[in-house]
Amino acid sequence: MDGSPSPASPAGLSAYVAVSQLLGLTLLAATGAWLGRYRGGVAWQSPLQFNTHPLCMVLGMVFLQGDALLVYRVFRNEARRSTKALHALLHGLALLIALVGLVAVFESHRAKGISNMYSLHSWCGMAAFVLYLLQWLLGCGFFLVPGASFSLRSRYKPHHIFFGIALFAFSIATCLLGITEMLLFNIRDSYSHFVPEGVLANVLGLLLVAFGLVVGYVLTRDDWKRAPLAEEMALSMDFKTLTEGESPGGSQ
Amino acid sequence: MDGSPSPASPAGLSAYVAVSQLLGLTLLAATGAWLGRYRGGVAWQSPLQFNTHPLCMVLGMVFLQGDALLVYRVFRNEARRSTKALHALLHGLALLIALVGLVAVFESHRAKGISNMYSLHSWCGMAAFVLYLLQWLLGCGFFLVPGASFSLRSRYKPHHIFFGIALFAFSIATCLLGITEMLLFNIRDSYSHFVPEGVLANVLGLLLVAFGLVVGYVLTRDDWKRAPLAEEMALSMDFKTLTEGESPGGSQ
Repeated sequence: MDGSPSPASPAGLSAYVAVSQLLGLTLLAATGAWLGRYRGGVAWQSPLQFNTHPLCMVLGMVFLQGDALLVYRVFRNEARRSTKALHALLHGLALLIALVGLVAVFESHRAKGISNMYSLHSWCGMAAFVLYLLQWLLGCGFFLVPGASFSLRSRYKPHHIFFGIALFAFSIATCLLGITEMLLFNIRDSYSHFVPEGVLANVLGLLLVAFGLVVGYVLTRDDWKRAPLAEEMALSMDFKTLTEGESPGGSQ
Repeated sequence: MDGSPSPASPAGLSAYVAVSQLLGLTLLAATGAWLGRYRGGVAWQSPLQFNTHPLCMVLGMVFLQGDALLVYRVFRNEARRSTKALHALLHGLALLIALVGLVAVFESHRAKGISNMYSLHSWCGMAAFVLYLLQWLLGCGFFLVPGASFSLRSRYKPHHIFFGIALFAFSIATCLLGITEMLLFNIRDSYSHFVPEGVLANVLGLLLVAFGLVVGYVLTRDDWKRAPLAEEMALSMDFKTLTEGESPGGSQ
């Protein structure tokens, strides 16, 4: 940011991040291929409105949520404030896209006279969305709005990180449930004959798991955690002295 | 172990472990209730053989696997060797029970002429079982058999821990897929009317997620990690000096 040479990323991190992005783009392409090739495509005001749901959920609740989690690893040498803003922005975008996906499924069910909220997928999905929204609001409240003390922030931070990763895993599990529901509603009789649609959707499921695994590995590897920059250390020590609270400037 | 007073467990840990066990027993009871009340019960040599599958998988791949992960937190003041043996033993038992569950589904499918390994649940389930077996074998090879050096063990340990938690989450996701499959095969038409069987199975799904969440929280909370006991520290320093490798005696 200030023109001084950036410290290098830890060995291997860039390769894992690249693999995660390749997996992310592949799973988006696989979702598009499934909906386009076998489910008639995606449209809003038509019987195809339902298909907007899986596309938005994979894009918002998986790909963008995963990338929002990765920003502290990828932009490790940028100012914390910028990284934090990008983290919040990507999660906000993910939430907006997921909301469109939710509206799509409720409107499509209403048009077709299908009941809502009876399946395990719908229960998990609604729980994941509401908790994700809550996590985002709490994150903004604690880390973006200036009110919270350093001590409060540092006590909340490990919980924010744990629930962030848990919600990401839960979102992926909910997508797997959605894939299974869609297949059993649409190709129940031919699914067991290994028809291409079933195989493609299963592969999409495995890609979702692989994406979650790689993102989870990058996030939890101890020596890849973001260390505070030199100027943040100095600043946080000053604040600590001023407020007599703890410093939240540790690795995350 | 030697009669000296044990250091107290960290505040809150016992409560969380108790909640996890309560959830674990409740989800086993819910599985039993579902199979007993709505699916005719469990038996081996009969058309009910299939029902052995969900029971064994919830018991082995979720409850016992989760408890095997918790032993380092629960028995934090016992000798590392005993804790390690219990950890391996519980995982081994979980694998055996899961194997019975696998045999049950394959035999039941054969008897009824149903295809195998076509669904996302079966792909995920087979992957989870094979990877869990591999993880167990690697764990025994690195940590129980005396051959591996301290340096090798300490390099493998973080990967063993990450994949252990990831496999546990994946096993739970696979159970959710199995619940959805069973419901859509058995009560597809009445599921949307919120019939008791559907609601009970959905609740079982949420209990599985809650169990995973509590176990995951206990495992990943930094200040609840098992610190090496005083005698282990001394012993590991001696070995480190002798072998010039690193000590694997850090917290886990």
